[in-house]
Amino acid sequence: MEGKKFVVTPWEVKGKIDYDKLIKKFGVEAIDDKLLKRIQNHTGELHHFLRRKIFFAHRDLNWILDEYEKGNKFFLYTGRAPSGKNHIGHLVPWMFTKWLQDKFDVELWFQFPDEEKFLFKENLSLEDTERYTYDNALDVIALGFKPEKTKFLIDTKNAGLMYKEALKVAKRITFSTVKAAFGFTNEQNIGAIFYTAMQAVPSFLPSVIKNKKIPCLIPHAIDQDPHFRISRDVIPKIGFYKPASIQCRFLPGLGGMLEEGKMSASEKQTAIYVTDDETTVTKKINKYAFSGGQATVEEHRKIGGNPDVDISYQWLTFFEEDDRKLENIYNDYKSGKLLTGELKTILIEKLNKFLKEHQKKREKAKKVYDKFLIK
Amino acid sequence: MEGKKFVVTPWEVKGKIDYDKLIKKFGVEAIDDKLLKRIQNHTGELHHFLRRKIFFAHRDLNWILDEYEKGNKFFLYTGRAPSGKNHIGHLVPWMFTKWLQDKFDVELWFQFPDEEKFLFKENLSLEDTERYTYDNALDVIALGFKPEKTKFLIDTKNAGLMYKEALKVAKRITFSTVKAAFGFTNEQNIGAIFYTAMQAVPSFLPSVIKNKKIPCLIPHAIDQDPHFRISRDVIPKIGFYKPASIQCRFLPGLGGMLEEGKMSASEKQTAIYVTDDETTVTKKINKYAFSGGQATVEEHRKIGGNPDVDISYQWLTFFEEDDRKLENIYNDYKSGKLLTGELKTILIEKLNKFLKEHQKKREKAKKVYDKFLIK
Repeated sequence: MEGKKFVVTPWEVKGKIDYDKLIKKFGVEAIDDKLLKRIQNHTGELHHFLRRKIFFAHRDLNWILDEYEKGNKFFLYTGRAPSGKNHIGHLVPWMFTKWLQDKFDVELWFQFPDEEKFLFKENLSLEDTERYTYDNALDVIALGFKPEKTKFLIDTKNAGLMYKEALKVAKRITFSTVKAAFGFTNEQNIGAIFYTAMQAVPSFLPSVIKNKKIPCLIPHAIDQDPHFRISRDVIPKIGFYKPASIQCRFLPGLGGMLEEGKMSASEKQTAIYVTDDETTVTKKINKYAFSGGQATVEEHRKIGGNPDVDISYQWLTFFEEDDRKLENIYNDYKSGKLLTGELKTILIEKLNKFLKEHQKKREKAKKVYDKFLIK
Repeated sequence: MEGKKFVVTPWEVKGKIDYDKLIKKFGVEAIDDKLLKRIQNHTGELHHFLRRKIFFAHRDLNWILDEYEKGNKFFLYTGRAPSGKNHIGHLVPWMFTKWLQDKFDVELWFQFPDEEKFLFKENLSLEDTERYTYDNALDVIALGFKPEKTKFLIDTKNAGLMYKEALKVAKRITFSTVKAAFGFTNEQNIGAIFYTAMQAVPSFLPSVIKNKKIPCLIPHAIDQDPHFRISRDVIPKIGFYKPASIQCRFLPGLGGMLEEGKMSASEKQTAIYVTDDETTVTKKINKYAFSGGQATVEEHRKIGGNPDVDISYQWLTFFEEDDRKLENIYNDYKSGKLLTGELKTILIEKLNKFLKEHQKKREKAKKVYDKFLIK
């Protein structure tokens, strides 16, 4: 698939993504071993998303650590534009955000820009996005965030707090700029054109509220970078720190990494939802997970499988924390010792265990949802 | 000055305005005697702004009366984008709105789009517009609106209520549309591009809050029509009545009607502010009010003056309610019996009496300001 085009924008991800090219194209920096070491000095251990370069790039993370070392703590900002149920790919940046919150003992501002998908999808109503906001929020809470350190910003609900701040950003962004960054045409609606200003707000709102400049670190999937590229230019001009960020790769869809850029919640056969039951997960993986194995058992034993394109293996790089176990699986699959069916079973067990636990916590989350809201 | 170009947009008014041409260009309807009669059936008398065609055009006013006669009351919506102190020209549509409120016993929603001028003027801050909102509101209250029937909508303060509704409008307006209506370029900022959606909101917000369709009548100066032309296309699509409107001419600036389109608050020599004291008013009118008189008294007695271009006379058409008195002044000035100095004195006395009273009420307004706010 060399040379094949791929697309990564906040509204569309497709094709086989070349992350090295993205680093150059977006102008982010690769996370190198020196930076990993510096993080480890504070965290004691490294999250497997860092060890495996699933979080692979950043902007100004060294500055965030400089400030932290001077005693100037940052806060975290991430989010979810509600347009459907969450799939397990959505959890990736949030699991990492939770780890950062615990290790650095910092606040998280979690944005639900419930207007975004309404503005970009013809058939989605604000009633839909309100419903999904609540549904999606349960998964965030289920990951263990504490209400004392975590605030939910829901754009339409908290517009009283956010709109005024968004205006300060919006005044400094022209249509030319959003046109170039997002590929808008003159037929784009004026709400969608304005939207990026709302996405900028959480990166400095805590500084407004506490009336002092606080550094902000945004963990996010790489497709959101164009928003922050724009807002990083503007935010210092209105008197706040340029937000830093750390970017992750996409969890690929079940269909494989060659065709789909990331798991899509709207394509049911390629996604595992956080509420899928054991049977559904088992069926989906057995039926749809793209395999790097050979056509017959005999051939597989002889030639071995290819874990680098095998979705079950790729997903285990996200969900199996133990490096030793993962390495054994890699080697066994490559040598042909481990069959595709067996590899799928390992993933199925891992995921079902995780989801069973998650679904329990998700139920409990309903009781504490209100505690995360800004009144 | 025939054939000279004039410009009327929400952001700029200049040149000698041909109101007949505007009616055609904007697609509004002239208010004819039949419609005046129909209004009079309900109001008993006609406001001098109607008798003198200062309110000269409308959209769907017959429909508003149809509904009213069926028992389906409308509400009024007007506003002020705060960017400086009010001058007497600002009061014109509000005085008429007060009359409508009294005669039809209806609610008024008064918008202070405090972000508008912030977005359109480089050097205006949101702190400035906040200050001016309060200052401007005092004049609205001073005109006698009752808090039981009048609500102030301040965009940045009430965004919690408004932003969500603005999104429904914004989703249905493209950049092409605002580009054509307002003459925007690609260098326009994205806040300004979005703004028209916020101006649409008060025309259906009461319907949202009360959960039933309520007709809306918007009294406003003709330059704001492009906003409502756009929103009238959109609002029925989101389930509400198309707002009706009634348009007034501009109070000309002191310098005359040939050069300036309307009184400008930023040009101090052409405006009388609502807080100007007696001496200032006297000086400004004596010094700057464009005269339709002759160069010498002798000549004036012989040839007579021209009330049609004389600013003092023109202003009296706005502020002298008595038709008989006004007619005498017209005839006396035209015949040469009344000198320019005498005409100016009539205006000065009229205005100073009005302003003295207004300034007292303005002081009292400070005590009740809070009652008009939406909590």
